[in-house]
Amino acid sequence: MTDQLDAAGRLRHLISLHGLGAARITALLDRAADLREAQRRGGAAALPPLLAGRTVTNLFFEPSTRTRTSFELAARRLGALVVNFDIAASSTSKGETLEDTLATLEAMDCDAFVVRHKENGTPERLARHARAAAVVNAGDGNHAHPTQGLLDALSIRDRLGSVEGRRVVICGDVRHSRVARSDADAFAALGAREIRLCGPQALLPDADADAFAGCTRFEDFDAALDGAEVIVMLRLQKERMASAMIADEREYHARYGLDTARLARAAAGAVVLHPGPMNRGIEIADAVADGAQSLVLEQVANGVFVRMAVLAALLER
Amino acid sequence: MTDQLDAAGRLRHLISLHGLGAARITALLDRAADLREAQRRGGAAALPPLLAGRTVTNLFFEPSTRTRTSFELAARRLGALVVNFDIAASSTSKGETLEDTLATLEAMDCDAFVVRHKENGTPERLARHARAAAVVNAGDGNHAHPTQGLLDALSIRDRLGSVEGRRVVICGDVRHSRVARSDADAFAALGAREIRLCGPQALLPDADADAFAGCTRFEDFDAALDGAEVIVMLRLQKERMASAMIADEREYHARYGLDTARLARAAAGAVVLHPGPMNRGIEIADAVADGAQSLVLEQVANGVFVRMAVLAALLER
Amino acid sequence: MTDQLDAAGRLRHLISLHGLGAARITALLDRAADLREAQRRGGAAALPPLLAGRTVTNLFFEPSTRTRTSFELAARRLGALVVNFDIAASSTSKGETLEDTLATLEAMDCDAFVVRHKENGTPERLARHARAAAVVNAGDGNHAHPTQGLLDALSIRDRLGSVEGRRVVICGDVRHSRVARSDADAFAALGAREIRLCGPQALLPDADADAFAGCTRFEDFDAALDGAEVIVMLRLQKERMASAMIADEREYHARYGLDTARLARAAAGAVVLHPGPMNRGIEIADAVADGAQSLVLEQVANGVFVRMAVLAALLER
Repeated sequence: MTDQLDAAGRLRHLISLHGLGAARITALLDRAADLREAQRRGGAAALPPLLAGRTVTNLFFEPSTRTRTSFELAARRLGALVVNFDIAASSTSKGETLEDTLATLEAMDCDAFVVRHKENGTPERLARHARAAAVVNAGDGNHAHPTQGLLDALSIRDRLGSVEGRRVVICGDVRHSRVARSDADAFAALGAREIRLCGPQALLPDADADAFAGCTRFEDFDAALDGAEVIVMLRLQKERMASAMIADEREYHARYGLDTARLARAAAGAVVLHPGPMNRGIEIADAVADGAQSLVLEQVANGVFVRMAVLAALLER
Repeated sequence: MTDQLDAAGRLRHLISLHGLGAARITALLDRAADLREAQRRGGAAALPPLLAGRTVTNLFFEPSTRTRTSFELAARRLGALVVNFDIAASSTSKGETLEDTLATLEAMDCDAFVVRHKENGTPERLARHARAAAVVNAGDGNHAHPTQGLLDALSIRDRLGSVEGRRVVICGDVRHSRVARSDADAFAALGAREIRLCGPQALLPDADADAFAGCTRFEDFDAALDGAEVIVMLRLQKERMASAMIADEREYHARYGLDTARLARAAAGAVVLHPGPMNRGIEIADAVADGAQSLVLEQVANGVFVRMAVLAALLER
Repeated sequence: MTDQLDAAGRLRHLISLHGLGAARITALLDRAADLREAQRRGGAAALPPLLAGRTVTNLFFEPSTRTRTSFELAARRLGALVVNFDIAASSTSKGETLEDTLATLEAMDCDAFVVRHKENGTPERLARHARAAAVVNAGDGNHAHPTQGLLDALSIRDRLGSVEGRRVVICGDVRHSRVARSDADAFAALGAREIRLCGPQALLPDADADAFAGCTRFEDFDAALDGAEVIVMLRLQKERMASAMIADEREYHARYGLDTARLARAAAGAVVLHPGPMNRGIEIADAVADGAQSLVLEQVANGVFVRMAVLAALLER
């Protein structure tokens, strides 16, 4: 993988949390918490204009208003100018190579590119090609979604004090999930005690996958929940049920949905995360999604501050 | 209906003008006129940054660049950060409930939502669900379009001195028009002498409708125009002609189009309004649309200032 | 043509470079170079807020993220508020005339319109209709793309010292190219020694065309290159090959593609321009596109500064 650090050891791109290390991850979470504190005291107008004069370009090749808006708000509240590049109307759709599109935008003095793409490795490929601009991976294929890993870690740390020593369950279509991989990277770096991957056999990852080294595997959700302090529920792509030999959404919910009764099997005070958008009644019941143990809205709120911290780390002079 | 006011009697949402009262409406129009004066003296740079640090999100489930752009300019010229939420690419299109989409954006510290939706009641439903954010109705079904009512009232007041005591005709597809309802609400609150609804029988509203209590009904446009000082021409949705048993656009124009000859039947100095976009040659003739009695462009200009006044009332600390 | 100048001789619109004159073109290039110098010294935050309080509206009736983004960055970095008018969702698509759309946006105090349209003359038509707003042609049909002409001239001047006295080749589908016309206008005004148009007979312009008065014509690219100091390669619209009786992309490249061997036929130190997006391997070989003689990325960078200069000239008070 491209080194995400420059010669002086500073973050140059953010492609993956894998191998980034606890110190660097913690520094980003601390920075996010500081920016959050500043905004909560004085409103967004009280944030420091860390990105004034900088241009951040959203290059989303998969639609995602949630993540795109989060990055956009993070960048603009710190004073950056944000361009949402419309892929459908773009030169890329006229046969231009993605590298030429990047070079063109970089020639217009775009300082950072926030990239989402369905193919693993596209952000890294663009990072290799960039002259001076920073690339932030906003999700590539099933490879990584590093800012999601960071915001999940921050949300857990806020509520439980630390990620260290926690027993974590990640449940659902783990195999195809970049969220699961970046969460596992973050939690492992921060010293989680155990990371349990849970789902139908067909939706569990291969044993040798990097991000999941050291993780344990469960097909039985009830068993996986025993003693769990952190539960990450993944969004079900409904078209995946067939390959998992699950008949319908009702069966999925019965086996892998998190409702109040099942949540009671986890440790007292366990927290529940979901990257959104939620399929209510499928992977998560209303009472859990909206209950006191849910961190869903904290995750969203923290997402903006984590992205501020990442962009500031990459772009601050 | 959700109370639009908070416990202290301040405007918390703007869903409808119905029951809002003359004092509150007049205060919004006065505020709009003050902001207009500030901008006309010193340019948009002279406007006070009333919304600095605030985020306004446009949630348009029906396409409308005209109204969306008006809200966007209003918010940004007062210093707000504006996010145009792309519904087609959004989580809502991935099966997320509208309430979850709202909660997600509110968790990102969006302070106000400007909502357009084809179904009556959607803005009110979102207002009920919002924790702290304000909701502005930018048009829902045939229910209400309150900022249109305000901008029409301001445009009339500017030219005629007041809405009070005026005889008003609203002509066209009144039944399906949210503009007609919000105009009738505004004009009635401000003391119009008479509100006449005019159109083919099938396009007139039922007698018992709230917004149109006390209005008179005409099928004959010439009769309706007698003594009228204010004439609001509605946009014809061409697909509605059939239900009104009108053969074609030519017949519609002959019966319900406003041309110079017909305008002469109204009071001297009568003013003509149209919410736009105009079907020239159908509900309105070029000579009237572009004539001295037309307020069409004043309406558009006032729209921005009225929306500034509404957003300032909702979001100012 | 509408006069682009106001009564006092100041630039009021920018529709075409034709007849604009060397002094005015040079002043715009000098201004662009000054703004570039300011940004290179202090970053975009160091640019003067020449457009603070002004609103620039992008009206793109043809998709073009490249040019639209360049105008957007230019306007916003100078402090303007930019609205990207979404044509697909607009009133124009509901049957409103383009003139009414313009008048509506102008009533909302939009100060400038950046217009791209597939039909020749649309920007000029809108300029005639505007009350006070400025219109910038961002490309109309095969008529003109004046900011491209300016940015190409600036890129040549930077590298070669001047356009004056240079021998230029414009190669490709010259007949349908607005870039070729605006380049020819700019280069002729600035005193180019010779402008050679090169391409298959069917893609060369008629002899009597205004923009190409005095140009020489070549079907043989090798002959055209002899002594050339500036080579502008045009993008091939692949659907045009048939009318030019060219079998396929390989034949096109063999006859009219610029590769290293062919570039060696031009003068030593000749520069190569391309308006982008490039069809690599068709009109231009990778080694040339990415080589030391290529100005492709300088063109893109200069595009932003030239557009700043144009908007500043039109909108500065």
